[in-house]
Amino acid sequence: MSFTKKNVSLAEGPDPRSSIQTERANSKFNPEQMNYFLEGSKERSELFKGLAQQMERDPVLFTDGSYYDLTKDQQRELTALKINRLARYRETDSIDTFNKRLSLVGVFDPQVGTRIGVNLGLFLSCIRGNGTAEQLKYWAFDKETSNIKGIYGCFGMTELAHGSNVAGLETTATFDKETDEFVINTPHIGATKWWIGGAAHSATHCSVYARLIVDGEDYGVKTFVVPLRDSNHDLMPGVTVGDIGAKMGRDGIDNGWIQFSNVRIPRFFMLQKFCKVSADGDVVLPPLEQLSYSALLGGRVMMVLDSYRMLARMSTIALRYAIGRRQFKGDNVDQNDPNALETQLIDYPLHQKRLFPYLAAAYVISASALKIEHTIETTLEELDQAVAKEDQRAIFKSIDDMKSLFVDSGSLKSTATWLAAEAIDQCRQACGGHGYSSYNGFGKAYNDWVVQCTWEGDNNVLGMSVGKPIVREIINLEDKDKKVRGSTAFLNQLKEYTGSNSSKVVLDNVADLDDINKVIKAIEVAIIRLGQEAASTVRKESLDFVGAELVQLSKLKAHHYSLSEYVRRVNEFDQKELVPYLLTIAKLYGATVVLDKFAGIFLTFNVASTKAITDLASIQIPKLCAEVRPNVVAYTDSFQQSDMIVNAAIGKYDGDIYENYFDLVKAQNPPSKTKAPYSAALEAMLNRPSLEARERFEKTDETAEILSK
Amino acid sequence: MSFTKKNVSLAEGPDPRSSIQTERANSKFNPEQMNYFLEGSKERSELFKGLAQQMERDPVLFTDGSYYDLTKDQQRELTALKINRLARYRETDSIDTFNKRLSLVGVFDPQVGTRIGVNLGLFLSCIRGNGTAEQLKYWAFDKETSNIKGIYGCFGMTELAHGSNVAGLETTATFDKETDEFVINTPHIGATKWWIGGAAHSATHCSVYARLIVDGEDYGVKTFVVPLRDSNHDLMPGVTVGDIGAKMGRDGIDNGWIQFSNVRIPRFFMLQKFCKVSADGDVVLPPLEQLSYSALLGGRVMMVLDSYRMLARMSTIALRYAIGRRQFKGDNVDQNDPNALETQLIDYPLHQKRLFPYLAAAYVISASALKIEHTIETTLEELDQAVAKEDQRAIFKSIDDMKSLFVDSGSLKSTATWLAAEAIDQCRQACGGHGYSSYNGFGKAYNDWVVQCTWEGDNNVLGMSVGKPIVREIINLEDKDKKVRGSTAFLNQLKEYTGSNSSKVVLDNVADLDDINKVIKAIEVAIIRLGQEAASTVRKESLDFVGAELVQLSKLKAHHYSLSEYVRRVNEFDQKELVPYLLTIAKLYGATVVLDKFAGIFLTFNVASTKAITDLASIQIPKLCAEVRPNVVAYTDSFQQSDMIVNAAIGKYDGDIYENYFDLVKAQNPPSKTKAPYSAALEAMLNRPSLEARERFEKTDETAEILSK
Repeated sequence: MSFTKKNVSLAEGPDPRSSIQTERANSKFNPEQMNYFLEGSKERSELFKGLAQQMERDPVLFTDGSYYDLTKDQQRELTALKINRLARYRETDSIDTFNKRLSLVGVFDPQVGTRIGVNLGLFLSCIRGNGTAEQLKYWAFDKETSNIKGIYGCFGMTELAHGSNVAGLETTATFDKETDEFVINTPHIGATKWWIGGAAHSATHCSVYARLIVDGEDYGVKTFVVPLRDSNHDLMPGVTVGDIGAKMGRDGIDNGWIQFSNVRIPRFFMLQKFCKVSADGDVVLPPLEQLSYSALLGGRVMMVLDSYRMLARMSTIALRYAIGRRQFKGDNVDQNDPNALETQLIDYPLHQKRLFPYLAAAYVISASALKIEHTIETTLEELDQAVAKEDQRAIFKSIDDMKSLFVDSGSLKSTATWLAAEAIDQCRQACGGHGYSSYNGFGKAYNDWVVQCTWEGDNNVLGMSVGKPIVREIINLEDKDKKVRGSTAFLNQLKEYTGSNSSKVVLDNVADLDDINKVIKAIEVAIIRLGQEAASTVRKESLDFVGAELVQLSKLKAHHYSLSEYVRRVNEFDQKELVPYLLTIAKLYGATVVLDKFAGIFLTFNVASTKAITDLASIQIPKLCAEVRPNVVAYTDSFQQSDMIVNAAIGKYDGDIYENYFDLVKAQNPPSKTKAPYSAALEAMLNRPSLEARERFEKTDETAEILSK
Repeated sequence: MSFTKKNVSLAEGPDPRSSIQTERANSKFNPEQMNYFLEGSKERSELFKGLAQQMERDPVLFTDGSYYDLTKDQQRELTALKINRLARYRETDSIDTFNKRLSLVGVFDPQVGTRIGVNLGLFLSCIRGNGTAEQLKYWAFDKETSNIKGIYGCFGMTELAHGSNVAGLETTATFDKETDEFVINTPHIGATKWWIGGAAHSATHCSVYARLIVDGEDYGVKTFVVPLRDSNHDLMPGVTVGDIGAKMGRDGIDNGWIQFSNVRIPRFFMLQKFCKVSADGDVVLPPLEQLSYSALLGGRVMMVLDSYRMLARMSTIALRYAIGRRQFKGDNVDQNDPNALETQLIDYPLHQKRLFPYLAAAYVISASALKIEHTIETTLEELDQAVAKEDQRAIFKSIDDMKSLFVDSGSLKSTATWLAAEAIDQCRQACGGHGYSSYNGFGKAYNDWVVQCTWEGDNNVLGMSVGKPIVREIINLEDKDKKVRGSTAFLNQLKEYTGSNSSKVVLDNVADLDDINKVIKAIEVAIIRLGQEAASTVRKESLDFVGAELVQLSKLKAHHYSLSEYVRRVNEFDQKELVPYLLTIAKLYGATVVLDKFAGIFLTFNVASTKAITDLASIQIPKLCAEVRPNVVAYTDSFQQSDMIVNAAIGKYDGDIYENYFDLVKAQNPPSKTKAPYSAALEAMLNRPSLEARERFEKTDETAEILSK
């Protein structure tokens, strides 16, 4: 019997803590340095750490296991208090720093991030994208919206009957020449603004997407700033707002519905960077209509970064657990040794194959997140300058860049958010029953996350919209030999891999699989051949007919973008001693997230031989997993996510999975409460009189005799 | 302006109700008759309907949209009240009828089903499986457990550090000859009983899995009935129980943890059908050890049925929504007609390809659920008779049958529960943003469901345990030509499809794809060839090394079992006019759930040609979807799930998706409450003084001048 432990223990219990600490001590690289790669630079890495430290010490922002026991009402209130607290940081942070802070908040309390993101991101992005510089200045800065002060915006795009088809929205904004006003109206239930984040309780103003009607003519959907609540936070007349209520996740967000019943706003509340209505009712239509939907772009880009952080967080939990948890004596243990410890989950090849792909995905997506973030900053800046200078040539170049950005961000957003959703689910399953406990983070992570696959561009709709230009480009190459520019320029290799070359194999053996450039080439050829097959169907049928293929093309495109950018970054990374570890990750991503998952396509189109795919499973993936295995702790520590950010009892840094988990369960559910509040009802049920007694003995033989006489 | 509608409407809104009613009117078959196939017979179909009607009229059992707003505490209490109510039905239902009632409860309120299932299923199954007939009679009937009265049992198998490896459990039951008692003890934190459903607040007794220790010798894990609470519902001395707390789902279940600190029970509380300890400490070991883990079997079988009902429920919601919802003008609409309605989601080929597989899966899994249910009843009955008669030959036959049942139920449980989990997720995504609202059912369905993939046999562990005998059988065929019996007898075709025949293609063109028997044959050949490949790796490495392949084998095995049984049932179905509609479903299941999903395997092992797989996507799947499309309403109505059972605002029978959804949202969240309870905090934030004022003007230029003097 031992009293040296925390509690009396009559026998030696499991010691997961030692497993992780031993592996940490034996790691072959420095996680802090590795984080410079993941975050882009030493400076950026340190900035994030400083922000995390500030928040984990903050009395309001700090989040721990008790978070998982909050009811919807508690979440709503706490979220509001956190917004209030973050508003104070907003006043002193630079905008760039505050966005980085929000990116972190998005990991440990995503509903707070969203609730602020709708205001500072969507509402202001809509004004920035569609309003004049003066309109932006007025609403964002003069009114202090950008400091989360004075007014609070929500984003009134989707309606009950319209989501993806923004051009089909039915709210109307009818110009009234007499009063120089627009009349905003919800004509029927289907046009009720729906899912509007912040509308239920927070927002004072809404950027409303509504059909511009002037003199009976419908000019399509434009944007208007419509006040919802006055400065006493009372609803404006004609404005009806309700709470959308309970959701699968993110219950801290007060999503609402809005109905406008002939609500009047001054003419100049219309956002008029591209489209103007004069007092006489003359409408100047936007020459650059396609630029007016840019409000969602920033969000999509942010979601790629979110995906990286979520993949990192989930792999960290599941891999730390897999190191500490032992179950069964596997093939690596002497079955005749009664004292042999059971096998660590992580030493089972299936477990490695289940989890390592998400570790690899976190690394690879970190690179595409950084690149697409950089691209959007540059593109929007150049566009603003071009529009300001009225430089037509620069404007058209910007439109081209914006189109590329739509494609790249759309394919990355959909592919990365799906991948992260899958990772949360698979990492949970890999933690067995304990993955189902709220305190280990997966449940709320999943529930909060999956809406990312739907909002700001439904993933399937986005995927199709990315696949369509690829198919069109292939048709143009076939018909007019029209060369492709931008990130799909590899399509120009069409003739080298189709027609008489359509059975040319790119990956034929293990050596090919181990050559990351060949793997990238294989993705290009797969896109070309699948795209060509889809194009030939489109010629016979229609684009709608190949929806599934379009989505596949979009996914392959995203993997191509991510893997290419990752390899480029690795090659130029200055910490050369880390490069081999980063390259293993690239190969693992190619082998698992791409080749294994899309094996059907690679085989159907002869991009990989059947031998290559057989070797992939039996040789290449096991080899790469074996390379990753010794440094799993270092790979996950490299994400530098502190215990608060990970917020999972079985996923803590010290690896003491059972003690940490048990402590939290007891703290949140004190065992001194031995009876449930409803125990009396239970006890009454168990101790109820017999059925005969409760039936007043009316069905007994004795009664039968009496009644039958 | 129209006043004929429910509300004032300034324009014609969407009319989803008409879409579904028109399609219903045009259905080509009778859903009530189709339900006879799904439920197995007219009688069984009507029995289920009678039970559903009883419960939807019951004041306590009735469930509606308000269910989705319950907090954990409310769910716990309501669940207890429902158990109390169901206990009254239990007293009058036959056991078989009550089990059918529970199967329905499992669809609309699964946590109630589980909480009862642990008591009547696991606890009593453990006693039935491991106790003598007298022990069963005493605990189940004399003590009225089977009437949910007197005592309430929980099932003490899993521990904090052991789940899948039951043989490695660490709780001890040490025999004390002096007092003729067992001493039950939890030696360390890892051995704490964990996840025990009902332990936290309900259970009075626990069937404890503990290591039998007699005279210092460890005889392995046996089962013991241990009282937890006395008749006043107070904890017994030495028993510590706590609440596991918040979970991803099923919060209505009071899962708990239990620690035993030298708790004494009489010797005869050990369950001793197979293993006995005499008063002198003589241990009679079980000759039939493998039969003692049968407690989980019934649950696994039930989960196949649950999977059918969940697949049915989810497809019903998503397909009704897809009929009513219109978005964009697709290729089937005249783009130049401004009055043309937008396209119904269900008319997009991608949408069909996303959803129809789950519709097909519901039909096909219904057949395997019925078959496996019948098999377990027969097998357990025969075993009981054989043991009672001490008929050695019959006992050995029963052991063989039990082994088959382990394999079949394990592969079906894992494959079907995974499929249902995927269906919930995909059906939710197919409903876009509205899928994320709690009131449309997907969120709670998913959260409640996914534990089915983990408990009572982790799906991956089960999958491997099914794959292993397949690989062993192939090795025995190769080495000893030892023939295989039972449901994997098709492995005996090994030589016909391997060696010099290893490139013989089974599916070469569209005609082959359309021949369901060839598709079933193709699954057999895929299992044979993948199994042989795995066997050859096992000879070089180990079984652990091919874990991923083992799980794939298990999935293919389940699809083979299900599809074969379904086709057999269709062929003998007496409503011949329904057969064509049922056969289309079989082909669709084969094409999508099997061939499309496992295309990599079918191609790698030359079971299907690349042409067949290309045609699958471009010809066969679209053709089958087109066949299903006109009868989607009839196919889903055939599940005969009433609105209460479906419990989704957008999934109701009348198809009035927007009105139903809006009504529920308003009822649950009255818009008359225009301010949040925490509004004061929000308003104070928005109206806070300026930063300078809050800093007491200490950082102004004026102050700077003063302080720098």
